[in-house]
Amino acid sequence: MTAPRVFPVNVEPCPHDVLLGDGLLDRIGELAAQVTAPAVAAVVSDDNVAALYLEPVLRSLREHGFDPLAVVVPAGEGSKCVATCELLWARFAAAGIDRHGAVFALGGGVVGDLAGFCAATWMRGVAVVQVPTTVLAMADAAIGGKTGVNLPGGKNLVGAFHQPHRVIADVATLATLSRRDVAAGLAEVVKCALLEDRAALGRLAAAAADLLAARPAALLDAVSLGAAVKVGIVTEDPHERSGRRALLNLGHTVGHALESVAGYGALRHGEAVAIGLVAAARVAAARGLAPEGLVGDVARTFEALELPVALPPGTDHAAIVAATRLDKKSRGGVRRMVLPLADGGAALHDVDDAELLAALA
Amino acid sequence: MTAPRVFPVNVEPCPHDVLLGDGLLDRIGELAAQVTAPAVAAVVSDDNVAALYLEPVLRSLREHGFDPLAVVVPAGEGSKCVATCELLWARFAAAGIDRHGAVFALGGGVVGDLAGFCAATWMRGVAVVQVPTTVLAMADAAIGGKTGVNLPGGKNLVGAFHQPHRVIADVATLATLSRRDVAAGLAEVVKCALLEDRAALGRLAAAAADLLAARPAALLDAVSLGAAVKVGIVTEDPHERSGRRALLNLGHTVGHALESVAGYGALRHGEAVAIGLVAAARVAAARGLAPEGLVGDVARTFEALELPVALPPGTDHAAIVAATRLDKKSRGGVRRMVLPLADGGAALHDVDDAELLAALA
Repeated sequence: MTAPRVFPVNVEPCPHDVLLGDGLLDRIGELAAQVTAPAVAAVVSDDNVAALYLEPVLRSLREHGFDPLAVVVPAGEGSKCVATCELLWARFAAAGIDRHGAVFALGGGVVGDLAGFCAATWMRGVAVVQVPTTVLAMADAAIGGKTGVNLPGGKNLVGAFHQPHRVIADVATLATLSRRDVAAGLAEVVKCALLEDRAALGRLAAAAADLLAARPAALLDAVSLGAAVKVGIVTEDPHERSGRRALLNLGHTVGHALESVAGYGALRHGEAVAIGLVAAARVAAARGLAPEGLVGDVARTFEALELPVALPPGTDHAAIVAATRLDKKSRGGVRRMVLPLADGGAALHDVDDAELLAALA
Repeated sequence: MTAPRVFPVNVEPCPHDVLLGDGLLDRIGELAAQVTAPAVAAVVSDDNVAALYLEPVLRSLREHGFDPLAVVVPAGEGSKCVATCELLWARFAAAGIDRHGAVFALGGGVVGDLAGFCAATWMRGVAVVQVPTTVLAMADAAIGGKTGVNLPGGKNLVGAFHQPHRVIADVATLATLSRRDVAAGLAEVVKCALLEDRAALGRLAAAAADLLAARPAALLDAVSLGAAVKVGIVTEDPHERSGRRALLNLGHTVGHALESVAGYGALRHGEAVAIGLVAAARVAAARGLAPEGLVGDVARTFEALELPVALPPGTDHAAIVAATRLDKKSRGGVRRMVLPLADGGAALHDVDDAELLAALA
């Protein structure tokens, strides 16, 4: 076992760090006790992840003085709702978790958002330790303090900013993911490369075979790239106020529209984002904002990673274009998309229907 | 109309002020627009308060560019629950309140806590303007950013710290309160006098007739006293970490126990706190921490304000003593109470069963 890679996140009111490594799960009690005093703690997970990793986590926590209570919810986006929050809160009450307690979020993005929100709102906020077990969560969702649940009226409408006391990501847990889920998670890493490290696109494509085979060393490099970019942006704009954090939405205008039109679950989030990233690169190239070659670089990276680069056959392009107008970045009915720029950065630009339709063709 | 009294609250992430005055309700649109850009806004109130004050508030908001949506909930503690949050969030979604929107909490403590929590969690936090209409809310509950709702397992278990953009308190709205509710609200003002301004005890007793008759000038002075003390303490310890804010719990160890044993609703919160303040003064005097005369000064003030100073006949003293052990300030099963000191301040002290029983006798 080597020492974890450490990414400091200097944000108020809770400066903390992100630890990435191979074999951290067995040390979780030790690593958690460094940042929050051992106490009664809830370990929230879903039934898929719990079957694989709950026992070693509970054991390690007990060995380091925590009194852990496991709360397991059904896997899937359906658990990210107010009814599940009520279940978690009731369990916290029954276990006697007080304001000195802690919540561990062991799982992917759904568990992180759900457990993070319940921790944010339990007795006006208790410590949460994010323990992501997917590529997506390690490189993106578990970092930055966004928590929330869905309402019938929309996704993530109810939530809070609640920075974790620590993020502990063990790439060994990625070995049990499907090849498709590993690939989908890497779409957010490609996004981070587009935002701040274009040279990494080629490295990701070259490492594709190792990444898709879930080799720990390759995955550690990839999630480190995503985490470094995300940590940097979140530190500059923790509450999404300056516009800096909005850049993380690159690829998500079309991505969210596609998920919403195709129905959640038909496409993985990362697959929809991959298609959205190619579309954003096309719009930028057509405008002359980004070099023409960028579209090919992005598409080749995704193809190497077995990710889609175009809308699935039969998709209603007009419906996608209409759905993007509902994006939360829109102002006065005008669609605004994050576009990759020639200088290696990205920026928000108004994009009209015709431009977007052409990019989707 | 005179200029409002202004109390700045210098807390991150949302420095703001508390405005107290006579006749502010008709100016609410103007006063709100100074601190949050006019937008779609929810005005949350209860059916009692809405019948009296909703129309002028909506009118003033419309005159200043807001697009207000009224959300009226049943009056009473029963509305402070997760089910009502779901109702509010659904209304926010239907009205299209986005992260630039605002929530107005028009009412007493229940409405302020409920609407404040829903604002804290709507799209990870939108602006809330607290518009308290009770003595209790003006002098205490609307100040300090504590929001929350009850669970079956306990009061205020779910909540958030969410500072308002402004507190706008119009003492003219107190004219419609019952004499009993005015008196109960003043118990928290007496608490503030005990914490930081003992000389004010006599002034409150001398002004009792004017206060109970809801004369605006007298009430403005009283809520100003409470607001000044609360603002000072909250500014020093906004998240209840240093122990300073815990001093605001003076009188509440016994007060909460009494409410819980007597059943919520049998006693007004302020009535239970009045009894708790006398008990705390007795414990302090018996220990020699506070001067013997303090108990009489406090009791005389409450008697002038028509508030109780002793447990209701037939109360099970042992049950009260047992219930105080569940107080959130307890550590390792040891009861800790805020006690008034000889120097005019207060501090946390361990208190055993026998001491407390003697003080309740």
